[in-house]
Amino acid sequence: MRQVSIIGTGYTPVGEHWDQSIRSLAAKAVLNALEDAKIQTVDAIYVGNAYGGTVSEQSQLAPLVADYTNLVGVEAYTIEAGDASGAAALRTGYMAVASGLAETVIVVGAEKMTDAIASSRVKSRSVSLDADYETAHGATLTSMAALLMQRYMYEYQVDLASFEGFSINAHMNGSKNPNAMFRNKIRVGAFAKAPMVSSPVNLFDGAPDADGAAAVVLTSRENARSYTAHPVHITGSAVAVDTLALQERQNFLSLDAVAKSFQKAFEQAGITPEDVDVLELHDAFTILTTLSLEAGGFAERGQGWQYAQNDGEAIGLAGKLPISTFGGLKSRGNPVGATGIYQAVEAYQQLTGKAEANQVNGAKTAVIQNVGGIGSTAITHVLQVD
Amino acid sequence: MRQVSIIGTGYTPVGEHWDQSIRSLAAKAVLNALEDAKIQTVDAIYVGNAYGGTVSEQSQLAPLVADYTNLVGVEAYTIEAGDASGAAALRTGYMAVASGLAETVIVVGAEKMTDAIASSRVKSRSVSLDADYETAHGATLTSMAALLMQRYMYEYQVDLASFEGFSINAHMNGSKNPNAMFRNKIRVGAFAKAPMVSSPVNLFDGAPDADGAAAVVLTSRENARSYTAHPVHITGSAVAVDTLALQERQNFLSLDAVAKSFQKAFEQAGITPEDVDVLELHDAFTILTTLSLEAGGFAERGQGWQYAQNDGEAIGLAGKLPISTFGGLKSRGNPVGATGIYQAVEAYQQLTGKAEANQVNGAKTAVIQNVGGIGSTAITHVLQVD
Repeated sequence: MRQVSIIGTGYTPVGEHWDQSIRSLAAKAVLNALEDAKIQTVDAIYVGNAYGGTVSEQSQLAPLVADYTNLVGVEAYTIEAGDASGAAALRTGYMAVASGLAETVIVVGAEKMTDAIASSRVKSRSVSLDADYETAHGATLTSMAALLMQRYMYEYQVDLASFEGFSINAHMNGSKNPNAMFRNKIRVGAFAKAPMVSSPVNLFDGAPDADGAAAVVLTSRENARSYTAHPVHITGSAVAVDTLALQERQNFLSLDAVAKSFQKAFEQAGITPEDVDVLELHDAFTILTTLSLEAGGFAERGQGWQYAQNDGEAIGLAGKLPISTFGGLKSRGNPVGATGIYQAVEAYQQLTGKAEANQVNGAKTAVIQNVGGIGSTAITHVLQVD
Repeated sequence: MRQVSIIGTGYTPVGEHWDQSIRSLAAKAVLNALEDAKIQTVDAIYVGNAYGGTVSEQSQLAPLVADYTNLVGVEAYTIEAGDASGAAALRTGYMAVASGLAETVIVVGAEKMTDAIASSRVKSRSVSLDADYETAHGATLTSMAALLMQRYMYEYQVDLASFEGFSINAHMNGSKNPNAMFRNKIRVGAFAKAPMVSSPVNLFDGAPDADGAAAVVLTSRENARSYTAHPVHITGSAVAVDTLALQERQNFLSLDAVAKSFQKAFEQAGITPEDVDVLELHDAFTILTTLSLEAGGFAERGQGWQYAQNDGEAIGLAGKLPISTFGGLKSRGNPVGATGIYQAVEAYQQLTGKAEANQVNGAKTAVIQNVGGIGSTAITHVLQVD
């Protein structure tokens, strides 16, 4: 099996792109990435997308993207894994290069959430829950996260204000990222007083749905240096699934798929949590960040929230474990099927020293994790430089 | 790169399964395939599905399938490529095993089209056309196929009755397949008088949407014989895309992606059209069959329809090029995202001598092709036995 490296990236700003369609966003990211990698064509395009069919009324995105980027004729198809669709597409591109079936591939994540508004968006988004045992009863992703957070707060006797550091840190980093959706900072003390959405998840807790597209170009590690002096190597890649419905789990405060995908990716890369310089988690809700830190072995059970203390000092750009370094889902925004690829792009920027105001000094190892549903699909990649 | 083999299959009958959900259909196919391969677990599940989100209001199918088959914890995600979703999932499973990242994987295609009826199904199905330049103007997959067929009939001066042999053959073969949706035979002469849907595509021309699920278990060729005495090897695998919109093409009577995927798969397997013993085409419409035969080099341009002459004698089970041997999309039915896997299962049955009344004697090489849109995504696999 060949090793795989990233040799170029492309992306659009994250936000509400009322004047653009999903195809134009995706095409921009792909064309930017091709330009960045200084190549004209690739052997394959793998598209990560979650809600094209339901929100944008556009599926079969792959031939559309190929058409709008002058790549008609190549191999191309779409990968879906709820909010983890981007990372699942990255996994597919990784396999294509690792197997030797492709020399260069492009992986693009794209989503256009503003194609649907209000109740229509809730309906479209709820298809990634269990239709029979969650959606049918009125549950949404936010309400399920809220139940989980309630349970956590009760079980470990943690109050709402204890989570605020996660959002403060995300917005602090996002405020420096010109591509972030929300660049405002969150004042200390404001979090616990924010308008409630589904108790205890409030407006400063949940990440905003967004439009955006991001792409990475992959090739084999052995050939990467013929394209760029600064390749970033994918040294770990792992996918694991849990039950789709939360109620099917023995203990829903233990995100087993998240733990398993961390463990497998760490093993493959030969690293431990102590080796991680940058950690991009799927911070769609602070409870997901908390439980993912515990599942990854960064904290004991019931202790993940402690990373949020002192306004998130430990997870800041100069902290011991920098998280959401460009704002994460919370501040950069969550362009669902593109999120996993934004994480890859951000890790690439950190590891190649191009992160500008968001730079984590001397970063050599980044771990990115994209999660679909409430821990239903967890995909972890380890990115490293020589 | 490792070679890849199929070591087991599972499926449900194709039809209208009002009493079953997409999860139960998928789970049945997976459990049957595991039993057939005599294994309890796999490293990964790749799910082919096109309309889960829009028709069944259920996306993120992979963790759901894992849950209902006792496979929670494995790698799993969904692949979408319109009607070619099944074959795209097969391609993904092929890459996973070829790369060495997985030892055994299961690929399952599943669709539940009866979760939507009438106008709701048309809307759900139209997401795989170009939303801005086709769907927005009222085009459907059937109306696009009709325009293509009109053009072909005009260009090559072929009348409607000349296509009837394709449907007669499909239904003749389907009548012997206990898992087919429509087991009626089509009388000679009835085709050209059938009720019109979108001129010239009529009720005996287009394939019916259906419910169903099918699965195959893959492993490396080197290990295949430790699981079964009769493995079927995947000796060619190729994906190519064309523009999504028909109007974007230079010459839409030439299905370029179909041609390219045939050519690449044939090259990889080291075969020519003359070597093909069984050919499962994406016969959603007789015009697609016709143009695919031409794109694959089985007929000259403008001559593909000749395979339908004499009631399809040349494409019968004892003909020189057997097509739709279990009824094809037309008679077995088109459970969209599962269709590509039904093709793989049927090829497996032909090559292992288990096709019973549908057996093509002495078949050693089968080619299966699954197409999304009107030739927008074309995926070809070559299957062979020692």
